[in-house]
Amino acid sequence: MASQFGTLFRIATFGESHGGAVGVVVDGCPPRLAISRDEIQFDLDRRRPGQSRLTTPRQEDDQVEILSGVFEGRTLGTSIGLVVRNKDARPSSYEDFKDVFRPSHADYTTEAKYGIRNWQGGGRASARETIGRVAAAAIARKILKEAAGIEVLGWVQSVHDIEADVDRDRVTLEQVEAQDTRCPDAAAATAMEEAIDAARERGDSLGGTVECVARGVPAGLGEPVFEKLEADFAQGLMSLPAAKGFEVGSGFAGTRMTGLEHNDPFVPGEGGRPRTTSNYSGGIQGGISNGERIDLRVAFKPTATIRSAQNTVNRAGEAVVLEARGRHDPCVLPRAVPMVEAMVCLTLCDHWLRQRAVDVLPR
Amino acid sequence: MASQFGTLFRIATFGESHGGAVGVVVDGCPPRLAISRDEIQFDLDRRRPGQSRLTTPRQEDDQVEILSGVFEGRTLGTSIGLVVRNKDARPSSYEDFKDVFRPSHADYTTEAKYGIRNWQGGGRASARETIGRVAAAAIARKILKEAAGIEVLGWVQSVHDIEADVDRDRVTLEQVEAQDTRCPDAAAATAMEEAIDAARERGDSLGGTVECVARGVPAGLGEPVFEKLEADFAQGLMSLPAAKGFEVGSGFAGTRMTGLEHNDPFVPGEGGRPRTTSNYSGGIQGGISNGERIDLRVAFKPTATIRSAQNTVNRAGEAVVLEARGRHDPCVLPRAVPMVEAMVCLTLCDHWLRQRAVDVLPR
Amino acid sequence: MASQFGTLFRIATFGESHGGAVGVVVDGCPPRLAISRDEIQFDLDRRRPGQSRLTTPRQEDDQVEILSGVFEGRTLGTSIGLVVRNKDARPSSYEDFKDVFRPSHADYTTEAKYGIRNWQGGGRASARETIGRVAAAAIARKILKEAAGIEVLGWVQSVHDIEADVDRDRVTLEQVEAQDTRCPDAAAATAMEEAIDAARERGDSLGGTVECVARGVPAGLGEPVFEKLEADFAQGLMSLPAAKGFEVGSGFAGTRMTGLEHNDPFVPGEGGRPRTTSNYSGGIQGGISNGERIDLRVAFKPTATIRSAQNTVNRAGEAVVLEARGRHDPCVLPRAVPMVEAMVCLTLCDHWLRQRAVDVLPR
Amino acid sequence: MASQFGTLFRIATFGESHGGAVGVVVDGCPPRLAISRDEIQFDLDRRRPGQSRLTTPRQEDDQVEILSGVFEGRTLGTSIGLVVRNKDARPSSYEDFKDVFRPSHADYTTEAKYGIRNWQGGGRASARETIGRVAAAAIARKILKEAAGIEVLGWVQSVHDIEADVDRDRVTLEQVEAQDTRCPDAAAATAMEEAIDAARERGDSLGGTVECVARGVPAGLGEPVFEKLEADFAQGLMSLPAAKGFEVGSGFAGTRMTGLEHNDPFVPGEGGRPRTTSNYSGGIQGGISNGERIDLRVAFKPTATIRSAQNTVNRAGEAVVLEARGRHDPCVLPRAVPMVEAMVCLTLCDHWLRQRAVDVLPR
Repeated sequence: MASQFGTLFRIATFGESHGGAVGVVVDGCPPRLAISRDEIQFDLDRRRPGQSRLTTPRQEDDQVEILSGVFEGRTLGTSIGLVVRNKDARPSSYEDFKDVFRPSHADYTTEAKYGIRNWQGGGRASARETIGRVAAAAIARKILKEAAGIEVLGWVQSVHDIEADVDRDRVTLEQVEAQDTRCPDAAAATAMEEAIDAARERGDSLGGTVECVARGVPAGLGEPVFEKLEADFAQGLMSLPAAKGFEVGSGFAGTRMTGLEHNDPFVPGEGGRPRTTSNYSGGIQGGISNGERIDLRVAFKPTATIRSAQNTVNRAGEAVVLEARGRHDPCVLPRAVPMVEAMVCLTLCDHWLRQRAVDVLPR
Repeated sequence: MASQFGTLFRIATFGESHGGAVGVVVDGCPPRLAISRDEIQFDLDRRRPGQSRLTTPRQEDDQVEILSGVFEGRTLGTSIGLVVRNKDARPSSYEDFKDVFRPSHADYTTEAKYGIRNWQGGGRASARETIGRVAAAAIARKILKEAAGIEVLGWVQSVHDIEADVDRDRVTLEQVEAQDTRCPDAAAATAMEEAIDAARERGDSLGGTVECVARGVPAGLGEPVFEKLEADFAQGLMSLPAAKGFEVGSGFAGTRMTGLEHNDPFVPGEGGRPRTTSNYSGGIQGGISNGERIDLRVAFKPTATIRSAQNTVNRAGEAVVLEARGRHDPCVLPRAVPMVEAMVCLTLCDHWLRQRAVDVLPR
Repeated sequence: MASQFGTLFRIATFGESHGGAVGVVVDGCPPRLAISRDEIQFDLDRRRPGQSRLTTPRQEDDQVEILSGVFEGRTLGTSIGLVVRNKDARPSSYEDFKDVFRPSHADYTTEAKYGIRNWQGGGRASARETIGRVAAAAIARKILKEAAGIEVLGWVQSVHDIEADVDRDRVTLEQVEAQDTRCPDAAAATAMEEAIDAARERGDSLGGTVECVARGVPAGLGEPVFEKLEADFAQGLMSLPAAKGFEVGSGFAGTRMTGLEHNDPFVPGEGGRPRTTSNYSGGIQGGISNGERIDLRVAFKPTATIRSAQNTVNRAGEAVVLEARGRHDPCVLPRAVPMVEAMVCLTLCDHWLRQRAVDVLPR
Repeated sequence: MASQFGTLFRIATFGESHGGAVGVVVDGCPPRLAISRDEIQFDLDRRRPGQSRLTTPRQEDDQVEILSGVFEGRTLGTSIGLVVRNKDARPSSYEDFKDVFRPSHADYTTEAKYGIRNWQGGGRASARETIGRVAAAAIARKILKEAAGIEVLGWVQSVHDIEADVDRDRVTLEQVEAQDTRCPDAAAATAMEEAIDAARERGDSLGGTVECVARGVPAGLGEPVFEKLEADFAQGLMSLPAAKGFEVGSGFAGTRMTGLEHNDPFVPGEGGRPRTTSNYSGGIQGGISNGERIDLRVAFKPTATIRSAQNTVNRAGEAVVLEARGRHDPCVLPRAVPMVEAMVCLTLCDHWLRQRAVDVLPR
């Protein structure tokens, strides 16, 4: 469905950028999980605008409220309602867009699909829609950590043509969060900041890539055909605003290798468990995790909202020139990191629960 | 679910590479569609091995039988059962793999997940699994063509480091099928054939990319949040065997453009319909089609089965050297084309039907 | 999923009886439907306690707030968030039940399933859970009325051994709402009131049946196999608290008829449309509506919460005597009427939209 | 979807009564279950016509073939394809129905929904459609027995006005199968046989009820809101051909009891587990199993196909008189027993697996 994600750990989100509230209903969360409002708020704070000069100056408090499903600090096993009120709405700043289709935005396609549109902001196409995902994923992340020992960590790998050098096995949350850009390579981070500042000054915007790893994933998660682990990651990550590409393991670069170069040789590991000496597979073989680190990559286009004048058309079908104002990110990459992690957490938690319902007979 | 794909136009596939049969149940197909066994067989013939010297010499007849859901040449609206018997099984040629995990195959992950494995071939991880998808998609393709005027066409865009030059607006099925490689750029096709021959001779394999376009898609298909059109394409395409990456429109290259360069300006088109002067969006904005050509790209890794000796482990956890025999493709790209088209057809048909159930009130 | 209902018109509910709020996310609602908060509130007011002396004296305001999905009085086509704050919570009055399993309540089964329980009220097993259903169904009802000309109407058909005499073709909402019991047969209504009063006085409770009709349903809604229209009605209605039985058309009484008596003869109707001269089928044949009035019936057990002393056990497994206090309905039937209508509206709206996605090729 | 049932243990069926084959794809079956073709065939033999003079004389072999998903006698965990060829088709005997709508059949509603109909038999509305359900349920039954110690048993409780007296705790499969009627009360069985014979002779038909118990169900299966255990049973059972009513526990009779009479008192049981001294709840409280015997009841209308002349209309909208020939059951009840058991097994197996994915954190 349009606003639902997952099979067993399943979420339904709602909320426009400028309506009354955004939120999520989490269904299928296991009971007895200790979870606090603060743990959910932590990831929301990483997602929200106004964290640094690199992001939009809109100040959104984004304080989450738990409406149901948690009792005396533990989940009940029933549906969890989470809501975040919209506060800093300035619909008037969107009056310009009421009858004009912003290029490479969802204005025209929303109108084409629905014949109606909440022009006071981006509606469901706003990045604000991701609040529900991030809030729900904070719960999924806790399950993965507590019950399965899985850690999910993302970072900004590139901005425009600036590429970072990051050790996927050792990079930490602290290193990522130490940089406004969420790029843990300090030198690259500095260059990225400069590039973003320059883009903002000239009324332009930049794109880039986010990498994300999942460490500690046991072998056996995922399905062999349509719901391959990489297929569900791809769906989740390509559903993020501005995503244009997805890779697992070697990705597109792998197409320029030969089979002999690309195959990951197995060697005996601890306890007889097969391990690989390379990881071009990105931790997934045939749709199922192999126990190695999962490596994912997402491409985000440069932000569509820019201050420069652009040619476009209005609802009457006439050519017009648009000069956007409003408050927007010149580069979504730093804020995209918690969104990427969110979709990875939701997908992994779902598949981890699903495997519990598969492996029920004695081995 | 593991073996199901789609929401309204929904398929459930079954079958191992060396069991009794492979097949599919198609649910949600509109009634009164004229469809013949030959139309389904046409795409299966494009998918099967043994078409040319470029593919595995296994001769699989892959004759499809319609078991239900079609009456006097038209669909009944009820579930359609399609089955293809497995004929050319030589389980003995797989004896070598019974206790050995082939590198970068699904042998180990299948064993880890299920604790059991049909070692006589690749089980569900075999490319033979895609027969059900391709058969079902032939029906979806017919609906798209007849009822919506949509055409889906894929081709081999690159093999290893050989890249084709193809006009996405004008390329035809005939041009694609005229080449054993399914690369419509004749010069690139020749180079690809030579590279594939060379790889086979030295016991190695090659990967590459498939591009796919959908022409004639109306604006308004797709969903704004999780089931964005590109997200569902990504899931479908990343569920194909050997897929490692997915792009829509500008893809990863788009991350190196600025917003000003990347935004697709709108201009007034025929009948007042907004058109874009560039197509970095790939025909989708905010998860919803904008009426332009849809551009997709999939990366396929080099075939994991190679004839060269490789280090691996057996089920007992011991290091062994594997020298694979059997009959396999040195390059899956030519046969991947109908598989890519199949997932695009299934996804588009599903969203086209879904939009019929959304747009029900007067505009 | 636990808290989700429907395929295309799909809802996800949340909320315990004594948590922060109850609510619902409605996904798949067609765009451009005119809907006001008052229209949703109307059905909620019919559902809430404290309407008359026949129902629990708890005063619940149950004011619904629209959080998203509606703009300038019309639906956007995107997910609609509805929330009702919990106000009149007196957790202390539930202290008695903290460690005691009330007979024929969900206390023990909740504990068995989840190992945790919100003992401050009935949790998700509370009738308060139905607020989300009723709110969402008010929207479904509007679609059915506006777009399809379908009217759904329920009433109390029996309380204990008092059976009403109601004309299914002519009974009106006004006649139903004119009675505190929601039984439109005035004589039976009076007898029911007396019986309910007597039961309350002696600390006991009563059950009964609700009948519901859908008038104006076109032929062709429903599916031929698992999602037969009557099967989906049955699931929806048997998911209501306290439901113990379901009938369509002749129901159990039909088992004592012969085929010759039970078959509904067809006769030519207006415009050549086949009509039936009897309606033992209840408007559905082979899972699909036949254009006649749909007749449904639901059995509700007597309320489990009674004031009389009862034998039970506590969480330690010891025998104890329970004397319930708290504020409860001696008979849920009057309030069950809008709940029954809600599930019928949700099911019909879903199938009506689904049929739009089936009937897409020229006839 | 139309032809799919279940969430984790999920089936997709196909096949008309007179097409090439009927069958089913079973998705989500746990791996390593020992299952043989004979175990599946056993239940199919109970379902098929021609078992005794009480059922239609059509001789259907109904030999099931396993096409995939089972290897060396054990399930692989991947999708299982099962198919049964249609053999005894005599389309000519249906020529009479080509343009005539049989009263209380699905002929007219199928035509209304789809605008096309396989008139050679009942299409998907034929009882032959249930072959796929019964075949799949034989696997579910084995899981329930082997892994959970659950036994599902049904029998004919009434035919027309003849009611059986059966001990729900002690009745056995042998007692049921010893009677052609599948009514384990020998005296009632004899009376039922005479009534069925008499109905056949006069060209009429009879209905009745099937009861079904599930013994050994652990407490904790089911969901608290929409997918209550009784709601999913109701959907499954009301999706059987000719079903008109459903009851759990006290059912409709429970509406004539008071709360004091109806509540099931808890007493301490073995190991401190709460047990009830009565079972009006039918083993389910608040949608979740309570560890007591599950009691279900389904009403089946008298067979619609009768030999007597009936008034009806044809496709041209003209009044005609129909005198059906063909070979049909004067009473479906005996053959309905394995169908009822099938839906109960499928539902219970699904919920048993689902609970495995819920109860994952330490208690």
